[in-house]
Amino acid sequence: MSIIKVAVDAMGGDKGHKVVVKGAIKAAKANPVKIILVGHEKKLQNALRKHKYDGDMIEIVGASEEITMHESPKQGIEAKPDASIVVAAKLVGEGKADALVSAGSTGSVVLSAARFIPRISDVRRTAIATVYPTLNELERNDYLSLMLDVGANVHCSAEELAQFAIMGSAYVGDVRGIPDPKVALLNIGEESSKGGEKMQEAYRLLQNTDSINFVGNIEGKDILRGISDVIITEGFVGNIVIKTLEGAAKTIGKLGKLAFKARISWRFGLVMLRKGIAILKEVTDYSEYGGAPLLGFEKMVIIAHGRSNQKAISNAIKLAGKCVRDDVCGQISKNIKSFERTPGREYERMAFERSAKDK
Amino acid sequence: MSIIKVAVDAMGGDKGHKVVVKGAIKAAKANPVKIILVGHEKKLQNALRKHKYDGDMIEIVGASEEITMHESPKQGIEAKPDASIVVAAKLVGEGKADALVSAGSTGSVVLSAARFIPRISDVRRTAIATVYPTLNELERNDYLSLMLDVGANVHCSAEELAQFAIMGSAYVGDVRGIPDPKVALLNIGEESSKGGEKMQEAYRLLQNTDSINFVGNIEGKDILRGISDVIITEGFVGNIVIKTLEGAAKTIGKLGKLAFKARISWRFGLVMLRKGIAILKEVTDYSEYGGAPLLGFEKMVIIAHGRSNQKAISNAIKLAGKCVRDDVCGQISKNIKSFERTPGREYERMAFERSAKDK
Repeated sequence: MSIIKVAVDAMGGDKGHKVVVKGAIKAAKANPVKIILVGHEKKLQNALRKHKYDGDMIEIVGASEEITMHESPKQGIEAKPDASIVVAAKLVGEGKADALVSAGSTGSVVLSAARFIPRISDVRRTAIATVYPTLNELERNDYLSLMLDVGANVHCSAEELAQFAIMGSAYVGDVRGIPDPKVALLNIGEESSKGGEKMQEAYRLLQNTDSINFVGNIEGKDILRGISDVIITEGFVGNIVIKTLEGAAKTIGKLGKLAFKARISWRFGLVMLRKGIAILKEVTDYSEYGGAPLLGFEKMVIIAHGRSNQKAISNAIKLAGKCVRDDVCGQISKNIKSFERTPGREYERMAFERSAKDK
Repeated sequence: MSIIKVAVDAMGGDKGHKVVVKGAIKAAKANPVKIILVGHEKKLQNALRKHKYDGDMIEIVGASEEITMHESPKQGIEAKPDASIVVAAKLVGEGKADALVSAGSTGSVVLSAARFIPRISDVRRTAIATVYPTLNELERNDYLSLMLDVGANVHCSAEELAQFAIMGSAYVGDVRGIPDPKVALLNIGEESSKGGEKMQEAYRLLQNTDSINFVGNIEGKDILRGISDVIITEGFVGNIVIKTLEGAAKTIGKLGKLAFKARISWRFGLVMLRKGIAILKEVTDYSEYGGAPLLGFEKMVIIAHGRSNQKAISNAIKLAGKCVRDDVCGQISKNIKSFERTPGREYERMAFERSAKDK
């Protein structure tokens, strides 16, 4: 097998291309991957020149434009055909690279991937998955769970939710090394009758999907307990939930600061406070675990956080490499195919489509 | 005007009828309301006998059955026509009381009210509103915001969301004494184009509703900041968000306990931690602010928390009395009527119904 190539959007990210270059060098040293840095050729050459690295493992592909965080992703992609994220996604789509890593705006990564990288056959919608820290009640080796979709789509069907479960399971099974990851459906109660017709249908589908280990519905209050490895929800809800947790973490941080100003005697508490709330703070800290996978494409796409430092970029590249090596996309494809061919699915699908029309 | 009568479901609540009786006595002493305690006649007489109270202000109406927290509300109401919540709701529906207070299961209160208390004319769906604490960035006199719906319904239309905004505004305007409360729509982004067709339509409707002060979309990360007085969302999302916050508060509490066990030196921090996270803990602590209003009925309904102590029961009765005195339901009725008669609404409604069908 030839060496794995990861295309890295070198202009994405709030901290600028120099941090991405440093992260790429770090990754190339520690992992058997070749990195294709995509961005302003001269800037990248200048940045690379300041470091020692194996020239066989890092190459530059020029891209004269970039899409900023504040730009409309849709307009950006249309107006800038030579933007770094566009060129990087094209490289992956054309098979010149095996995976894509970008710390650019989520919208621009999602849209570029959608335009230039083929979706896995039978996958109806791609999904953004976010890793978040939990109390780890399952006592896994790490304390992370995966939630998807957190914003690639607004709404989706029961069948699409089941597909998200298949994709999330395959990803977590590989990346966290959990053989039979527990999958739960985010809902307003534990009973299978909760949440309206679509959620009831999703519950039934998930129960009858062979390639996943469905453990039932999960309520909002149990998200942080870590009682499932994967939580499935539609983008509208997932986005609001993840941002609510982010807001809760910030609120506590702010209260800490207010306390710091208010009373000397509180200062002792603050150090502790900070440790105690680390678990919530990390909801938005991708640096340890590399980034959010965008699942459903034939090639692996990792969205690194906009604020990624060099360690986070390096981890994102490492993660992309591991997913390619273990053929996560191939596993997803296999399981989605088997899901679509489950006997009885045809009937269930028709019944569901009928009921959706009646509403 | 004759004295305000509040029917209190004396058998609801995890702490038993004695606590409800104590709460009622406390409320009767401090407020110009007459309390009708509904429940097992003898038990209530025995409990009352132990206290001094004005016999003109507290009366008992017998109800031989009760619906427990673990019972299906629907089956409970059907099987137990003499359940305390059923009898209490009937008293209110028949005009023998002006408001209903219950610390029973949310489902049994919602269903009993729906069955026996008329909905305000033109109100399409009732909604449960929850008060939650914030960082109070608006610098109001208190640090509370209102979110609705948090679970009376699963999904609802754009028009129903606009009605929730009208109901929540009227309630907050009265109870918190805020003349022009700020109303925000919970969504996945601030732009009016976010969240799909229904949320776009809701945004437009909210903008054009005279009786409310719509300030735009609000994201999950800003819920706890207190930048709006009322947050509107559908029941599925509201329920998950409120429970997620509840879970975040519990998680921090648990981390605090783990820390307590782990290290002596952390103990200083814990006291501070507890103060700092009070804001999150109170998400589930109704005792200070009386309970969650169930809005949209012709009479006021207050759902007190299941774990209500006597102070919480007393506050819930006080809250119900204030709402009756200030005619919150009448205000809601007036504003809903004016909303339904807004010129242009007919056209918008038809267009929306068409687009909903096309999906």
